[in-house]
Amino acid sequence: MNILLVHAHPEPQSFCAAMKDAAVEVFRQQGHTVTVSDLYAMRFNPVASAEDFASRANPDYCVYALEQRHAAEHGTLPEDIRTELDKLLACDLLVLTFPLFWFSVPAILKGWFDRVLVSGKIYGGKRFYNRGGLAGKRALVGVTLGGREDMFGESGIHGPLETLLKPLLQGTLGYTGCSVLKPFAGWHIPYITPQARAQVLQAWRARLAGLDAERDFLPMPDLADFGARYNPVPQKG
Amino acid sequence: MNILLVHAHPEPQSFCAAMKDAAVEVFRQQGHTVTVSDLYAMRFNPVASAEDFASRANPDYCVYALEQRHAAEHGTLPEDIRTELDKLLACDLLVLTFPLFWFSVPAILKGWFDRVLVSGKIYGGKRFYNRGGLAGKRALVGVTLGGREDMFGESGIHGPLETLLKPLLQGTLGYTGCSVLKPFAGWHIPYITPQARAQVLQAWRARLAGLDAERDFLPMPDLADFGARYNPVPQKG
Repeated sequence: MNILLVHAHPEPQSFCAAMKDAAVEVFRQQGHTVTVSDLYAMRFNPVASAEDFASRANPDYCVYALEQRHAAEHGTLPEDIRTELDKLLACDLLVLTFPLFWFSVPAILKGWFDRVLVSGKIYGGKRFYNRGGLAGKRALVGVTLGGREDMFGESGIHGPLETLLKPLLQGTLGYTGCSVLKPFAGWHIPYITPQARAQVLQAWRARLAGLDAERDFLPMPDLADFGARYNPVPQKG
Repeated sequence: MNILLVHAHPEPQSFCAAMKDAAVEVFRQQGHTVTVSDLYAMRFNPVASAEDFASRANPDYCVYALEQRHAAEHGTLPEDIRTELDKLLACDLLVLTFPLFWFSVPAILKGWFDRVLVSGKIYGGKRFYNRGGLAGKRALVGVTLGGREDMFGESGIHGPLETLLKPLLQGTLGYTGCSVLKPFAGWHIPYITPQARAQVLQAWRARLAGLDAERDFLPMPDLADFGARYNPVPQKG
């Protein structure tokens, strides 16, 4: 497998970074090719703006997605986006490791989605969910949290983690066509003992070691279930 | 009322910017004080990093929330964060206007949450949801979308918009203590006629004009319902 690991944590010595390093090690031991995008280390620019487009479809009014499409067609995407897009298109498995900030990804990772998931390449028109540009690839989220596990789930104060991660799991990874694996959560990380952390890291390693065989994906909408609007109209004979 | 309007759209002539301008106009006509943070115009830095802290609680290992707390206590928050935090603490109503990017806010706005919602000032320990630091303030989201209204809701392909916005509506605005109003959605904006856009803008203006009286808030968790862990233990007499 060709694996892209996108990592976004401000502290290079963090537990989350240890999860990233463990993933690299486990995957390489299995003979996979691993590419890492460490967004903080790269000082990745997360702000989607008109400045991304040296040559504009419409120089007077920027619709970001339309400019992405234009730039992709004309080979004028900026180099940082093109580099990340090439890594993404080449991978079989996308792994994201990040700490939960405001029940979502850190801004630097949100901006990776905003800028790298290029309209016209990754999605567009009727190409989304099972017809998205990343169809056939798998995706795994590895998230570290301050919260305890009992704060989540149906009876937890915040509700199910997978509901809170829906914009990511479904709205981003599923939308672009990825088959999305159940996320891995490292609970309460800033507050637990080194021994407890070692156990979490061990569970992460075990999960990754068996990942090749995992085919238990989160349910996603299927365009076929949603009528003619999303589906080709059969041609008359 | 003192109103803070945080706006995040890459195109200054966008419909979303027209919603921001309309809000300023309607609120000022009503005699309210309006402050605007136009994040793209300000070139707001959305990346929460150790660089935010000139004086560190722990110079060797950055736990962002703990450094926020330390900096808030010692008056060493960087100026851009302090300025935004002061605006936020001074407001009675927070209004966010943004286009939906990947079923969430643009990264520049996500980073405003990551950096400005300072631990120790806005939340921390048992101060969240109804006990959050912004309790007593109201919040309104005004979002523009490419999607059509029929793509959302219980039978829509993406599911209810309010579920997809849960990390924002509950996990951010509700978590910090705001009373959160039902979001306003401008559907299918890039694809509709100028006449249809004028109608959406008129509906937005009408909503804002009546906002002072709105007390129909989204349901949020109440710490009192979740046991001793979140609540003061009664002292023995």
